[in-house]
Amino acid sequence: MGGVLTKERPLYVGVDGGGSKCRATIYTADGQVLGTGVAGRANPLHGLAQTFESIEASTRLALRDAGMAQTDIKLLVAGLGLAGVNVPRLYQDVINWQHPFAAMYVTTDLHTACIGAHRGADGAVIITGTGSCGYAHVGEASLSIGGHGFALGDKGSGAWLGLKAAEHVLLTLDGFAEPTKLTPMLLQHFDVKDALGIVEHLAGKSSSCYAELAKGVLDCAVSGDKVAAAIVQEGAGYISEMARKLFSLNPVRFSMIGGLAEPLRPWLGTDVVAKISETLAPPELGAMYFAQQEFTK
Amino acid sequence: MGGVLTKERPLYVGVDGGGSKCRATIYTADGQVLGTGVAGRANPLHGLAQTFESIEASTRLALRDAGMAQTDIKLLVAGLGLAGVNVPRLYQDVINWQHPFAAMYVTTDLHTACIGAHRGADGAVIITGTGSCGYAHVGEASLSIGGHGFALGDKGSGAWLGLKAAEHVLLTLDGFAEPTKLTPMLLQHFDVKDALGIVEHLAGKSSSCYAELAKGVLDCAVSGDKVAAAIVQEGAGYISEMARKLFSLNPVRFSMIGGLAEPLRPWLGTDVVAKISETLAPPELGAMYFAQQEFTK
Repeated sequence: MGGVLTKERPLYVGVDGGGSKCRATIYTADGQVLGTGVAGRANPLHGLAQTFESIEASTRLALRDAGMAQTDIKLLVAGLGLAGVNVPRLYQDVINWQHPFAAMYVTTDLHTACIGAHRGADGAVIITGTGSCGYAHVGEASLSIGGHGFALGDKGSGAWLGLKAAEHVLLTLDGFAEPTKLTPMLLQHFDVKDALGIVEHLAGKSSSCYAELAKGVLDCAVSGDKVAAAIVQEGAGYISEMARKLFSLNPVRFSMIGGLAEPLRPWLGTDVVAKISETLAPPELGAMYFAQQEFTK
Repeated sequence: MGGVLTKERPLYVGVDGGGSKCRATIYTADGQVLGTGVAGRANPLHGLAQTFESIEASTRLALRDAGMAQTDIKLLVAGLGLAGVNVPRLYQDVINWQHPFAAMYVTTDLHTACIGAHRGADGAVIITGTGSCGYAHVGEASLSIGGHGFALGDKGSGAWLGLKAAEHVLLTLDGFAEPTKLTPMLLQHFDVKDALGIVEHLAGKSSSCYAELAKGVLDCAVSGDKVAAAIVQEGAGYISEMARKLFSLNPVRFSMIGGLAEPLRPWLGTDVVAKISETLAPPELGAMYFAQQEFTK
């Protein structure tokens, strides 16, 4: 199959790197999916070596899925959407990678998610999964909000919900606050009896460990727990405000992406909810579009 | 010198391990200082290998400072005060260490700090440095509060002050809050121009990096910045409440330890300030007392 790849008819791999996993999809030039692979986390902020490993591993799994030879990796034109590459130093580090592809084009995971969500057209997106961030691209203008990472920013994200809940439960167990439904929820989640058990499961852990608590926090909030509801409302309030800032660029379309997009919806401002459009394609296709645009320039 | 060491007249090394550094002091059985050494961080929660390395390195520097032979390390009775060993698994990990000492006794850094502060007598302490925690020991009763670690707990600590300030500055730079004196303080601290520069310096960094911002936050608070003052007041309020919980054990003495003990004083409740006694000895002497007590049992 490698032999038929030419500059005029190349194959592409679109890669969506994230704090929890890395997804690679191989596409034909007209966007047909040939194969998909998923590997571990690929966030340059938390380790370059692991990022490169996950990108290559997910691509190799995608090659296998597509029934292609592993050596065909050197014929693929890669588009990578990665967190953290808005930091010039990290962008340079990624660009300097002795990558296995025919060509490699790198941009932020936000940018590729936005291109994907609107199938190449201008628009705005908010991603609320393990982390949270917003991005809009309209003509020559682009606006990026939040996404400063756990535990510095990422308000309204899964990791943030988990952290706020854990903070409150530990204060509760030390007698600084009244018990809420969050306490049994957290103790049961980790199958432990006290604060020490919680700390043992969370101290020094990655944002994805905290994000695993998000569903429990949302359940407590929905079932009327006031502290949980206040946490969710604060996070959702931030996301609504972020959306309104993105709207200042007058994007034609706006989408919400990520595991918390649906559960947060009832907590968002009605003006925000009214503007949500479905995402048209995944970030990997956005990454492929980006690579194609750059490659055929 | 090693030859004169006997079970009746041993030499001791008291070790105070912490998130930023590890201090070891060699003492005679009657508490005379022979030599002191300081090495890197020794927090079992953040790595056992580094903890053991720092304990041994600081002890070896103390041996050199004392004019003793490096081989004398095997004649020392060691007392270790370490964060995290209240977690049973970590306590076991430390106890299992093939340590270089004649004997080794391990307890929490809080416990040794408390023994030191009151020179072996009962009492209570609050430590506010990079982290924050409280401990009281009265007769058979002991009470430990907080100390759940960055960024899960440690309210009122240096790292917490730094994190809260950084969070607020990033929200400000994204347009979610009005600018305060914290913004230029933080930008100047890292010598950067924007949010990206701040994130680059703080993302994934240890609590000590955040704690380096604490002085700037306190300066802003003292100079009347309302946001900084609110952060400091929230942290100090927590510390005051922690002190009152410790007072429930009726400790004879109460001391505040750590780099933030002095700067936080004006922000604490007057009832708390009225009870503060000076610390009588450092945590290393507390660790030595603890080892002596266990060794001569």
